[in-house]
Amino acid sequence: MLSFENDYSEGAHEKILQCLMETNLEQETGYGNDKFCESAKEKIRIACGHPEAHIQFLVGGTQTNSTVIAAMLQNYQGVVATEEGHIAVHESGAIEHSGHKVLTLPSHEAKMDPTELETYLADFYGDGNMDHAVFPGMVYISHPTESGTLYTKAELTELRRICDRFQIPLFLDGARLGYGLMSKGTDVTLKDVADLCDVFYIGGTKVGALCGEAVVFPKGNVPPHFVTTVKQQGALLAKGRLLGIQFDTLFTDDLYFKISKHGIEMAEHLKNVFTEKGYRFYLDSPTNQQFIILDNDTMARLSKDVRFCFWCKYDDTHTVVRFATSWATLPENIEKLKGLL
Amino acid sequence: MLSFENDYSEGAHEKILQCLMETNLEQETGYGNDKFCESAKEKIRIACGHPEAHIQFLVGGTQTNSTVIAAMLQNYQGVVATEEGHIAVHESGAIEHSGHKVLTLPSHEAKMDPTELETYLADFYGDGNMDHAVFPGMVYISHPTESGTLYTKAELTELRRICDRFQIPLFLDGARLGYGLMSKGTDVTLKDVADLCDVFYIGGTKVGALCGEAVVFPKGNVPPHFVTTVKQQGALLAKGRLLGIQFDTLFTDDLYFKISKHGIEMAEHLKNVFTEKGYRFYLDSPTNQQFIILDNDTMARLSKDVRFCFWCKYDDTHTVVRFATSWATLPENIEKLKGLL
Amino acid sequence: MLSFENDYSEGAHEKILQCLMETNLEQETGYGNDKFCESAKEKIRIACGHPEAHIQFLVGGTQTNSTVIAAMLQNYQGVVATEEGHIAVHESGAIEHSGHKVLTLPSHEAKMDPTELETYLADFYGDGNMDHAVFPGMVYISHPTESGTLYTKAELTELRRICDRFQIPLFLDGARLGYGLMSKGTDVTLKDVADLCDVFYIGGTKVGALCGEAVVFPKGNVPPHFVTTVKQQGALLAKGRLLGIQFDTLFTDDLYFKISKHGIEMAEHLKNVFTEKGYRFYLDSPTNQQFIILDNDTMARLSKDVRFCFWCKYDDTHTVVRFATSWATLPENIEKLKGLL
Amino acid sequence: MLSFENDYSEGAHEKILQCLMETNLEQETGYGNDKFCESAKEKIRIACGHPEAHIQFLVGGTQTNSTVIAAMLQNYQGVVATEEGHIAVHESGAIEHSGHKVLTLPSHEAKMDPTELETYLADFYGDGNMDHAVFPGMVYISHPTESGTLYTKAELTELRRICDRFQIPLFLDGARLGYGLMSKGTDVTLKDVADLCDVFYIGGTKVGALCGEAVVFPKGNVPPHFVTTVKQQGALLAKGRLLGIQFDTLFTDDLYFKISKHGIEMAEHLKNVFTEKGYRFYLDSPTNQQFIILDNDTMARLSKDVRFCFWCKYDDTHTVVRFATSWATLPENIEKLKGLL
Repeated sequence: MLSFENDYSEGAHEKILQCLMETNLEQETGYGNDKFCESAKEKIRIACGHPEAHIQFLVGGTQTNSTVIAAMLQNYQGVVATEEGHIAVHESGAIEHSGHKVLTLPSHEAKMDPTELETYLADFYGDGNMDHAVFPGMVYISHPTESGTLYTKAELTELRRICDRFQIPLFLDGARLGYGLMSKGTDVTLKDVADLCDVFYIGGTKVGALCGEAVVFPKGNVPPHFVTTVKQQGALLAKGRLLGIQFDTLFTDDLYFKISKHGIEMAEHLKNVFTEKGYRFYLDSPTNQQFIILDNDTMARLSKDVRFCFWCKYDDTHTVVRFATSWATLPENIEKLKGLL
Repeated sequence: MLSFENDYSEGAHEKILQCLMETNLEQETGYGNDKFCESAKEKIRIACGHPEAHIQFLVGGTQTNSTVIAAMLQNYQGVVATEEGHIAVHESGAIEHSGHKVLTLPSHEAKMDPTELETYLADFYGDGNMDHAVFPGMVYISHPTESGTLYTKAELTELRRICDRFQIPLFLDGARLGYGLMSKGTDVTLKDVADLCDVFYIGGTKVGALCGEAVVFPKGNVPPHFVTTVKQQGALLAKGRLLGIQFDTLFTDDLYFKISKHGIEMAEHLKNVFTEKGYRFYLDSPTNQQFIILDNDTMARLSKDVRFCFWCKYDDTHTVVRFATSWATLPENIEKLKGLL
Repeated sequence: MLSFENDYSEGAHEKILQCLMETNLEQETGYGNDKFCESAKEKIRIACGHPEAHIQFLVGGTQTNSTVIAAMLQNYQGVVATEEGHIAVHESGAIEHSGHKVLTLPSHEAKMDPTELETYLADFYGDGNMDHAVFPGMVYISHPTESGTLYTKAELTELRRICDRFQIPLFLDGARLGYGLMSKGTDVTLKDVADLCDVFYIGGTKVGALCGEAVVFPKGNVPPHFVTTVKQQGALLAKGRLLGIQFDTLFTDDLYFKISKHGIEMAEHLKNVFTEKGYRFYLDSPTNQQFIILDNDTMARLSKDVRFCFWCKYDDTHTVVRFATSWATLPENIEKLKGLL
Repeated sequence: MLSFENDYSEGAHEKILQCLMETNLEQETGYGNDKFCESAKEKIRIACGHPEAHIQFLVGGTQTNSTVIAAMLQNYQGVVATEEGHIAVHESGAIEHSGHKVLTLPSHEAKMDPTELETYLADFYGDGNMDHAVFPGMVYISHPTESGTLYTKAELTELRRICDRFQIPLFLDGARLGYGLMSKGTDVTLKDVADLCDVFYIGGTKVGALCGEAVVFPKGNVPPHFVTTVKQQGALLAKGRLLGIQFDTLFTDDLYFKISKHGIEMAEHLKNVFTEKGYRFYLDSPTNQQFIILDNDTMARLSKDVRFCFWCKYDDTHTVVRFATSWATLPENIEKLKGLL
């Protein structure tokens, strides 16, 4: 059975497994204070162009979102996301469990519109009488978004300006950041992300690691006692080395970027196959998630041989499905898919 | 540098790494719905002697404690632990972050006294006027305890009876369960634990895994929509296979028990070395954590060559330190330590 | 200065103050266990036609909403409201502070559409794969709504049927319930509300009391240890008599209904005045809140002599404002307003 | 039936009821922005000797404790109290419901020992490795304490110094503050309290009001958007005038102090009666709560004619009970009690 179900269907890049093997019996201290974490952090600081960056490795995306948001919001504040934001719909209320509301703006192919954000914040803070509301205390975006789309550098710069105007932090969920940075058309670099955000994370789980997200506070602006918040959220790994080794490997010789590039190339290949075969796309995604409109008969037929992800109903006879490529996608599997289409 | 600092200083048992290697590129579905998790669960059900058991793999101990407790308590309830209970002192308030109080009873070498528990619960529920208090809604014990001590089967049976009397669940934190079960003097088996507890977990992080705890609801008594609570707590691993593969390996050919036995043998060896050399023990631990009273000069000298863990001040000139063995402890390292003592 | 700013601008109905005076030095036990509360509860049970009803007096509306919702939801559940629901926008995130998400449906003049609710719940519970979402665990409506509109008995019955179908409770926020029940066109009685809801409250603060809301679980279906949840929320009044005396007075000789009727008559009078003077209404409200579209010049002029409430911008030159009547509105003040228009 | 059960058995001081009557139909804006609140705040600022004080009226004690603590703690912090502290045992876990742990120190007749506090904080902050613990982020004391005892000015000054040393705020629960300030032996004035604490409250519920506590941030050091936190906690009264009128009355012509003094005189009278009759006291309380050791036969006999409060078991044949006086205690009732003893 072929699978384009998601970008976490395989284990880890082989170099990661090799490194885990080679270092396995070295005795290291726990909770992320080991030499592997230190080395990985230093490499990430360099890759970001921010030597003063503070980095914390966490295990998964939802955990990272709730930990960062809980650490940075005051009790009377909520976080602004789009209506399709991962924290708004796919995290079982993790943010609310921490006591904070997710405030939503319209979603434009999962992107937030800077003008709508500015209007919203200006209305909120311009009105002196919002004491009974939840204060927008942070902006959350994902890049790539939940629909695979990307912000331009100009858009990110505009979001930054707006956050500065209202003095609230900009948080970028980079669970698939590698695929965003290696997308053909993007003008956004890792350094841009680090320059423009107050906090973001470099996703490992979906880009070659067994698990792991690297949270970056690029200006060293980590909240006080952040590691205690991490522990409180149940997010502090005893064997922090597991995360350190993985990110150290990913940030050695640009591995993170190289394997992300592979994922993008496979996505381009996949797009071409669907285009050639006359399929329609639900939206134009420049990254590793592709959204195809299938008629329901085709969907039923294909699903006998290929795993893909239900996305949403399109109309009574059509369905939108997601095909995801990744660092691990084999070109021959795309050829096999082509044969099936 | 030798290290007896803790039982999570190394990576994973080699068979786990091998299995990760061998299965690495197999495509599996996410979030714990993969075949490795299924296989591991089935093996654990058999090992527990409870074919109806419901099992959920989680990443770490604090996460497991807060997830299980949040899922099982009502909002007006707290959890009863000893004053030294891990949830009471070493988890940065994770339980309180979920809205629940940790109610404490005296600690007897980290064990809870069943008589004290029964008196406390009888007083609480006997008095009709406790509406302004927090209701004790669960009993939390760890086995081995934070001090390495163990409950007898009679004590666990007594705790079970008391929990039945007051109709509250008994939760056993088994972060180091393997070392408890393989302790020489114990009369408690894994089946006993499964018979006597409402929920417990089999610790992987400290017993051969890179990470991972297997939560067991032995009578299938999992709370409704538990996986949603897991997700809400940021505790649902996308690549659930990482946990499935590890526990599948650990529960193949009794590996979990064999490597735990090794850890215990190493602890016995360590005890003998300290005893022979005339050192005093702070308490008599039958498991893999040993607590030694060092005079401060010796402590300073030793710490140049050996890593161990500060436990508590003993008096002005002595300190209690912890030496931990594990599945990974090398006999030659104990010999080296002997040379240093 | 005239005021139609809201329905809590004055103190309490004079009979309440008289009763507070007369009983002032009687010694009573605390926390709502006094004879006044008992008497008031019995009268409310009779008025609701549910002798088995459980009643709890609380102080204010937001407190009541968060206490009831926290007591009735499981941790993995959220509460469904309209986008204009009071809990969604005007309570500073009180529900989220208790760990629960407010799930929103479209607002139709602040009413929830039963068909939209049923579609939403059917989609949610029909799909087997919602583990990563927040489970809709309760339906929250207000009657009258935040826009003064009312549900018909047929609509409430339909909401009840849908809640039964999906086995989730229906909670009616009756902060202004009296004005709803006395509205001219309504076919909904207090007994209907009690028959059709799992829990609701009879608002006192806006209907003649200094403070106080009477929560009613009409079928005796109060959550276990509800008073402890109340205490935990900081919502248990030491001098519970203050609430008991007020509701006992309000439910003696139909005072609650009589003064609500007065509020409605004043609203009708007010409507007529605005209609006669050629003003436009933003929506057709049959209760004590009236929403008028004023051109901005008129608004500025009027606001020198009359207090009313800004509601929302209508267009660049017009604003929607709210005029509220109440149990305390004096007919002569409406005449004075007429003179000013 | 006589009652010395508590200090909230009656309604309110008659001047409060008179003022409620007289102002009843004046139209005022809501949520504490009315002229009565403004006037009361100004009088309290003067009484405290802190013209820059920020004051917020809340309804009850538990609500006040959880609101103030939630507003002032960071998410990784807990609040330090004694083991008998009201927040530790009598508030149904309200503090934990807000996500914060109550950290406890030994109780000395319900007082916190400054030396023990300093040792605890010095140990905590002196050790660089407390990341897995809950950070003590506030000190909570009550004055009078739960046992009626009082801090001296020297003790409060010492607590202040310690809080300064560790840069954490000192919060004084003054639910019975009036009785403390009017106690015969005290050297602590209201200005001292305001000088020495970061935040405290002046209890109204137990000192002549129907309900209400006045929170004082004496140096204007109110947390940002505190009113939003108040609203979030369900603690913002719509008819704020109810609290404003009461405190305005209490702080006119020293009424608060005069009626507190009456409560103290009644307590002295009560003490004399018990002493004369040869009864033993459980502890020496200088305020309005008196703790008497009764043999169980006497307790049973007395309880037919007098209401008092069970406190704790003393031994198999004796019980400690509490007799409370208040602003409302009638001298003739003490004479009647004398007759019964």
